[in-house]
This record gives sequence, C-alpha cells and structure tokens, in this order.
Amino acid sequence: MMLHAQVHLTLPIWVHDQVDLNRNFDDDASKVALAIELSRLNVDNASGGPFGAAIFDAVGRVLSIGVNRVIPETCSVAHAEMMAFMIAQQRSLQFRLNAVGGPITLASSAQPCCMCYGATFWAGIDRLLIGARASDVMALTEFDEGPLPADWIGELERRDIQVYRDIQREAACAVLRHYSEQAGGDY
Amino acid sequence: MMLHAQVHLTLPIWVHDQVDLNRNFDDDASKVALAIELSRLNVDNASGGPFGAAIFDAVGRVLSIGVNRVIPETCSVAHAEMMAFMIAQQRSLQFRLNAVGGPITLASSAQPCCMCYGATFWAGIDRLLIGARASDVMALTEFDEGPLPADWIGELERRDIQVYRDIQREAACAVLRHYSEQAGGDY
Repeated sequence: MMLHAQVHLTLPIWVHDQVDLNRNFDDDASKVALAIELSRLNVDNASGGPFGAAIFDAVGRVLSIGVNRVIPETCSVAHAEMMAFMIAQQRSLQFRLNAVGGPITLASSAQPCCMCYGATFWAGIDRLLIGARASDVMALTEFDEGPLPADWIGELERRDIQVYRDIQREAACAVLRHYSEQAGGDY
Repeated sequence: MMLHAQVHLTLPIWVHDQVDLNRNFDDDASKVALAIELSRLNVDNASGGPFGAAIFDAVGRVLSIGVNRVIPETCSVAHAEMMAFMIAQQRSLQFRLNAVGGPITLASSAQPCCMCYGATFWAGIDRLLIGARASDVMALTEFDEGPLPADWIGELERRDIQVYRDIQREAACAVLRHYSEQAGGDY
C-alpha cells in the first residue's frame, strides 16, 4: 500500500480579491456580516457550501476566514469554522488562539454543526457569534447539523466561551434560501 | 493584512518505516491494536499526543491512519481521528468514505472527543471501534474529552454507525499511563 501521509486544504482563490479584510470589524454585527458575506460569495462562486466564518482578535482585526470546502477539497472536515480555526492557528503559531491574550471571537454565518461545536472547545475561542440558527439551516437547506448536548450553550459558557445568537439572522437565512433555490439543496 | 488561505498537515515521518500496514486486519481486535500501536509510537517518537486511529475498508485493508498532531502542526483540529478522516477522504476521492460501499470501520485508541465524535457523523463511517473509554483518558491523562449528548452511542446508532467499546482497553490504557509517566501529562 502507498501510504498517504498528508492533507492539504485551501480557501478559494476569490478570497484574495472579492472581499475586503483590511477594515476594522468593531461590533458584533459587522463580524457576523463578514461571515455571511463569505457564505454568499462561496455560493456565487460555486466554491463550496453556503457557510462562512471569520476569527477576530481583541481589537476587531481579522485573524482568519473560512468557507465550506467539503466538496472542492473532498474533505468532510472542511467546514467554514474548521478552516478558520486551522488557518488562524497555523498563522499565529498558537494551537489555542487565546493562549497569548484575547478575547478571540469566532463569527459564523450559521450555528456550528456537531463537529464544529466540539472543535470550538479546543480552538481557544472566547466569544462565539452566530447568524442563522440550526433550525434555520435544517428548514432552509438539506444540511444536517447533527446531535448536540441538550444544554449546548451552557456547556460552552461553563468553559468560558460566551455565545451570542440571532445576529444578522435574517441576512444569514437569505443566503441559505438563495443557495437552496439555486442549487436545489445539493452540497 | 497578508491573508493566509491554506492549511497543510502531515503525519510524522516514522509512519513510513515503523509500522507495517501491508497486513490484513481481519478482526476488530487487530484493528484497534493498530490504533494503539500508533498511539504508542507517537509517544515514543515525541511526535504528538498519545492517540492513534486507523480506517479500514470492508475487507480489512488500511485506508488511512492518523495520530495526534496538535502541537507539531499547531492545529487543535489535528486529532488522530481527524487526520485519518481527512487522509482517507483525499486518498479515495470521497468526502463520505462509504459513498461507494462499505462497511467502513474507524478504530480509535480512545473514545473520540467531542470534536471527533461530531466529525464521525459526516465522514462516512459505518463502524466505530474504541479502545480506552473517555473516563480512562480523563483519569490517566490531563486531556479533556469535552461534552457529548447524553445518549452519545444512541445518536450514532440511530444514524447507522455501530459502536463497539472496550476493545483492547487495557492495552490502550497502558499507553496513556506510559505517556503521563513520561511526559508529566503535558501535550
């Protein structure tokens, strides 16, 4: 057997010229708005599923961005939040992003699925901002969010990760709706 | 800002010459034994945390292996199971491993943490074989396993992923104990 021993994952090429990251994202609404903008651009560029995420340092600068890359990268792990975690960590040389200070904020266009939820505990995130709810994702698309602990928000908050929901929820839902109308709900 | 847009993850170099994968892993005990062997080699080579995983096709051939690479790759996502998922998928060009037939089996030296648990739902796995329990990991090391749904096994089985625990449990615990004695529980 030829042993495969590496993984390579990339963001789509349009991230370099279709999105302006050299702004300051001062408030929570602007942070989630960026995640939603990324989700919309991912749909319009046909470069993955309708999900976007971004990670910000304490003063609102972008540490990394992510979009869903499951199909283009043939990788079920390549959700938007996971891409953002991995890129931010390798960029900052910290496997826990808040190891050298925070708060570090993750903004996601939609509630993290069961995998991204679990990954959030290890990534060094202090604040989690969510656009669309899991119920929106499952009502508007064919994506499954998977099982979570009954008190999933409490589990995060007991480990010092604060959760803020329904930020720009309607804008996030509009992208999910647009995706399903365009793509027929396939991913 | 210089935008980082890619992730690169590798297995340690010793996987190419310290482990024989050209065997057939017919029964479940031999599959978990390989995952445990990988966890031990990862400790002895100081190439990551004390966890190993392997994925097998329907006739017991290795599709991929994984070991914990969190610190060497500066990546909180780089758990053994995640490495194995990503490598098997990119190798087989299937983001759901069982899309073209199964059953596909994941063997893990220890119970998957909350992230790897969630990832298991999306990876295209039919059978999950577990060595050490989460309670063993938390008793014998300083690693946290994170929160799971109360009926975590039932959630897997309701989605057609069969779970088998306590396979080679003592051998798996011996590696965890060895790691903690050697490293002082740091990761």
